[in-house]
Order: sequence, then structure tokens, then C-alpha cells
Amino acid sequence: MTLAQPIFKKVAVFGVGLIGGSFALALKAAGGAKDIVGVGRNPANLQRALDLGVITQLEIDPARAVAEADLVLLAMPVGQMKGVMQAIAPHLAPATIVTDAGSTKQDVVRLALQYLPNHLPSFVPAHPIAGAENSGVDAARADLFRGRNLILTPLAETSNAAIERVKTAWQLCGMTVRQLSAAAHDQVFAAVSHLPHVLAFALVEALAARSNAEDFFRYAGSGFRDFTRIASSSPEMWRDICLANRDALIQELENYQEELQQLRRMILDSDGDGLEKLFERARTARNEWLAQDEKK
Amino acid sequence: MTLAQPIFKKVAVFGVGLIGGSFALALKAAGGAKDIVGVGRNPANLQRALDLGVITQLEIDPARAVAEADLVLLAMPVGQMKGVMQAIAPHLAPATIVTDAGSTKQDVVRLALQYLPNHLPSFVPAHPIAGAENSGVDAARADLFRGRNLILTPLAETSNAAIERVKTAWQLCGMTVRQLSAAAHDQVFAAVSHLPHVLAFALVEALAARSNAEDFFRYAGSGFRDFTRIASSSPEMWRDICLANRDALIQELENYQEELQQLRRMILDSDGDGLEKLFERARTARNEWLAQDEKK
Repeated sequence: MTLAQPIFKKVAVFGVGLIGGSFALALKAAGGAKDIVGVGRNPANLQRALDLGVITQLEIDPARAVAEADLVLLAMPVGQMKGVMQAIAPHLAPATIVTDAGSTKQDVVRLALQYLPNHLPSFVPAHPIAGAENSGVDAARADLFRGRNLILTPLAETSNAAIERVKTAWQLCGMTVRQLSAAAHDQVFAAVSHLPHVLAFALVEALAARSNAEDFFRYAGSGFRDFTRIASSSPEMWRDICLANRDALIQELENYQEELQQLRRMILDSDGDGLEKLFERARTARNEWLAQDEKK
Repeated sequence: MTLAQPIFKKVAVFGVGLIGGSFALALKAAGGAKDIVGVGRNPANLQRALDLGVITQLEIDPARAVAEADLVLLAMPVGQMKGVMQAIAPHLAPATIVTDAGSTKQDVVRLALQYLPNHLPSFVPAHPIAGAENSGVDAARADLFRGRNLILTPLAETSNAAIERVKTAWQLCGMTVRQLSAAAHDQVFAAVSHLPHVLAFALVEALAARSNAEDFFRYAGSGFRDFTRIASSSPEMWRDICLANRDALIQELENYQEELQQLRRMILDSDGDGLEKLFERARTARNEWLAQDEKK
């Protein structure tokens, strides 16, 4: 989808990294935005984004950045969300739509209720499901979101008009838009994303903590590489996610610990039948998921 | 390395699947073998291997297969090891070297002590570290082993001459040959391979067992796909590995369970510093390993 005329005159992107930068590139490529102002704490990074043609302007001052903006995307780490909301709240025009790209949603909703209480009709929490091993504006690309899911978790207060505008912006980036409650979102992602990340970090840590870790790493193969790929993700971001989605993550972790305990029992008992059946169920479920996923 | 003249006149491969088939292709491509006889329980599979040019002859009878063979590779599932050893033992000439490709080594050593007691000087246990998501002879390829590690775990009884011959065969396939005790091998692979497989199977199983599993799988992304890739591996093979390497695997699993318990505590306590440090250590360790691995 490419537009004859931009539907957003001015878009402000807070945090011009992989996600914010790719959003800017994709929206511009689709002809969806005229001016894209990059905002952040690090002027060198903003200059880099400008040089790369990811944004059309840079801005250090949050108040000036949101002035007359149609759309504001909060794409910085969740840990900075509160500060940015506080900084922009007094300067938001009622018509300015604010959305975010955080990996957890109940915490963002809580922050919005507290720090953007007068702006809730125009606040649309969102989570684009896309990522890459690399981060930072240099990794940004216009096709990062193509064919992927975006989850909207609107508040009861959010207006339909605001939802539609945010939906359109992300659809222009190539995403399929779905809607969930913030609580359901956080439970689902605790299971399919946050828990796997924690498990991968834990595995590498357990190995690295040995005195003879090198003797082990030397023999690790491609299975290990893929299994632990997500353990190369940003520690800061995953710290924030663990803290923000603590309750759902703990529930998933405990569920998984029970599963492991059961498996441990089967191995101890040399229960070959039980193990084979469990592995078979898992393989079948994964292959069915893959087949579904490829159809998309 | 390609030879002017084959160093093996007759090689017998028991189990012509991904590993056995790729060994046959690689050895032939390097000019290392004249005749490669495929042996197995499934005539249709052997015929397929013959049609694909993976083997030069097929054989159903183990006695005839090993007659006058220079080298015998046992590449069928570990669960069939005992039966094949019993079948070939009375027919092995002293000069015929026997090796295997099993993922666990102490159990193969135990079986050899019991079922090939007169053939130990010519028995060389081995583990080629290579695999792929697919299995079966159709997935076999001559470059599967190129640049990868082969671990030899010879017995005290194994002759140096036999070790050298097996080493040469795998080097012709492009592998780097290393040597470990069978016990050290099993401990290392419990940590870097067997445990990750068990963890991946357990994660998919825990998800698939939910009544609303589809609602979860729908949102799983590329991180989940890579993390669980090894859960698409053969259930039969992984059952055998869990049973064969039970003690080392249980030790690794318990170690990991303790690591998870610690992580769970940090999340419950909202210990952001502790979490970030742990994630940072894991990321650094993984990235250093990757850098080392790419240098190879």
C-alpha cells in the first residue's frame, strides 16, 4: 500500500533504534508521513539517523518534538517510558495520537493512566512483533515489519478514531493488526517470548559459570547456536521486560519448572515410552505451528 | 584432500540415513572408498540410497555386508546397536575396523565390551558433530561434515593403527578430529546438546498441552522458532540419547533447575541489577563463543 498523499504531516519518534528507525523508514517508503522527527537522549545517534535518511529532522526537546505532531511513537526502552510521558504530557494537543512499541503492555497502560490521564482517548498501546539479532538505528530497515503481527491493546478510554489511525500507520508498514486485552497480551508473550528468552539466558549462564567453560563451548554446535540466539538480545531490554511482566512470567516459569520436573522423573525412571511420546507430541505441535506460520 | 587411490576397498555402512549417507557421499567424493555397501532393515530405503548414488551396493545380510570390509560404520539409531553388534561379531575379520556415529559414547563402549569382546583393538567409538533439521537418506550431502568436529573416544584396547584409519576417513570428509574419554564426551554433550534438546521439547510440550494452545502459537515469532528448532528432531533418537546418557543428563538438568530457581528468585524480588548482570554475562559469553566459532 502506497499513498498519493501522506496521512501524517508530522510524526515524532522517541527512540530511533531498530524499531523506531524501521517504523520511520517503512512509513516514509509507503508515503505515509511527510516529516519524521527523531527524538532521543543521544544527539550522536539522532545525527546518525538523520545522516542515514531514517528521519527528516532531529529534536532534543520533547516539548518541541510533539508540538503539532499528528502521531507520536514511543519506541525507547520501557524503562524510559515514565520520564518521556511526564515530559510530553503538558505539551500534547488533544488531536495528537500517542502510541508505543513496548514488548509488555499492562505496565505501559498503568503508566499512561498515571502520566497521560488527560490524553487517554488518543493513547493506543501497541506491540509490533518484530525483532532481529542486531539493534540500533544501523540495523533499521523498511521491511522489518512486513508480514508480521502488530498487537493493539487499547484502553476502554481509547477512541475508535485513534485506533484506526494507528492501525493504518502500521498497516502501511506491512503489518497485520490484531487486538488483545493488555492482560491477555502479557500472558501470551510471557509464554512464547519472555520465558524462552529467560531460559536461553539461563542456559548460557549455567555453562559460562563453570570453571572449565571453554571445554564445553568448544563442542557446542548449530543446535546450541540457534537455541541460544535470543541470549544475544539486549540485557537492558530484557531486564525491563522481566520486571514489567513479572507476574505472568513467574506463572509461566513455574509451569515450565513443573514440566521439567516431570521430564526429570521420566529420565530417572528410564521411561523410554513416556519420553518418546512427549518428544513426539512436541515435534508434531511445532511442525504444525511451522506449517501454519508459513501459510501466513 | 582427495586421494589418487582409495584407501578403503570396501566400506559397510549400517543405517543409510543423514549421517551414514553423508559419510558415504563425502568419502566417495574424496576418493577414499571404492565400494560402499549400505546395510539396513528397510530394503526400500537402501534401494533409494542406491538410486541416489549414495551407496554402490545394498545388502540385507549383516554377515555378507562385513565380509572382507576394511571399515564398518555403525550409523543406525543407538537402540539398534546391540542387535547389529551381535549379528556381525562372528563374521568380523581381525583387520576389519569398526566405528560408530552415536551421539553418546559410554553406552556404545559398554556394548562393545560386551558384544565385540574379541574385536576391541579394531573398535573405534566416534561422534561426528553434525546434524540438520531433516533426517533420512534424502537429506544426505557430501559437505555435511565439512569444518565440523569429530570426537573419537577410543578404548584402552583400541590400537593406534585403527584410530589412525578412522581419523583419516573422517578427515577425508572434512572433519577436525579431536579425542576425549567417553565419560568426558558424555558430560560435555549432556550440557551443550542433550540438555538444550530436552529444554526445547519441554517448552513446546508445555505450550501444546494448554487447552487454548492455538491462541499462544499464533503469536510466536522468529525467536521462538529458533529456540525450538531442535524440538523438531527425531523423538526416537532423543529417547535413546536420554536413556543412554541418563546420569550426565540428570546432573546437567539439576544444575539448570537450580539456575532457573535463582532466576525465578531475582524476578520475584524485582532484582533488576541482578537480572541485567546475569543477562549481560550470558550475552557476552555467547558472543565470545560465536566469535571463536566463526574463526574456526
